[in-house]
Amino acid sequence: MDIADWRKRIDELDLEIVALINARALAAQEIGKLKRSTALPVYEPNRERVIFDNVRAANRGPLPDIELTHIYERIIDVMRALQKDELASAKTGSGKTRETGK
Amino acid sequence: MDIADWRKRIDELDLEIVALINARALAAQEIGKLKRSTALPVYEPNRERVIFDNVRAANRGPLPDIELTHIYERIIDVMRALQKDELASAKTGSGKTRETGK
Repeated sequence: MDIADWRKRIDELDLEIVALINARALAAQEIGKLKRSTALPVYEPNRERVIFDNVRAANRGPLPDIELTHIYERIIDVMRALQKDELASAKTGSGKTRETGK
Repeated sequence: MDIADWRKRIDELDLEIVALINARALAAQEIGKLKRSTALPVYEPNRERVIFDNVRAANRGPLPDIELTHIYERIIDVMRALQKDELASAKTGSGKTRETGK
């Protein structure tokens, strides 16, 4: 395979990764709604620890655990912001949480 | 579905996301090897622009484009570091690029 072939492969993988990250975001939003109704906090360090353990246990490389963790720190940051928006929109009663820009 | 159900769903999604990010890393490593043999630079802004365009075009939400871009900025950073390691290990002749910690 040449560079163009590998890039085509990466572009295909990115479509799958984007879909899965959005599926994850949808689940985080649903959890945000449930947290709102049960008055649970958005930030739960124990749950985040479980996520990182799960991710590292699933890692078969070639990415080192530390680099995978860096990516997941960003994913968790974004998901936490999404849940906060979910709570904020509930308070203002705006219903919809965020514009996707589409 | 309650919070525990959604968390189970997230854990399952994370296994798939980890596998796909590693498949992407493998492709980036292979491109790193090809760049080494053709003396192409690791940092190619035009290619990175194509990746971000591709990712945004594939975005169906609920994540806003800006948040998905934040996640991808981290993914690209990590992949670029992996390619640099690939080039560095070629120079020292160590063969293997990085330890996965496993």
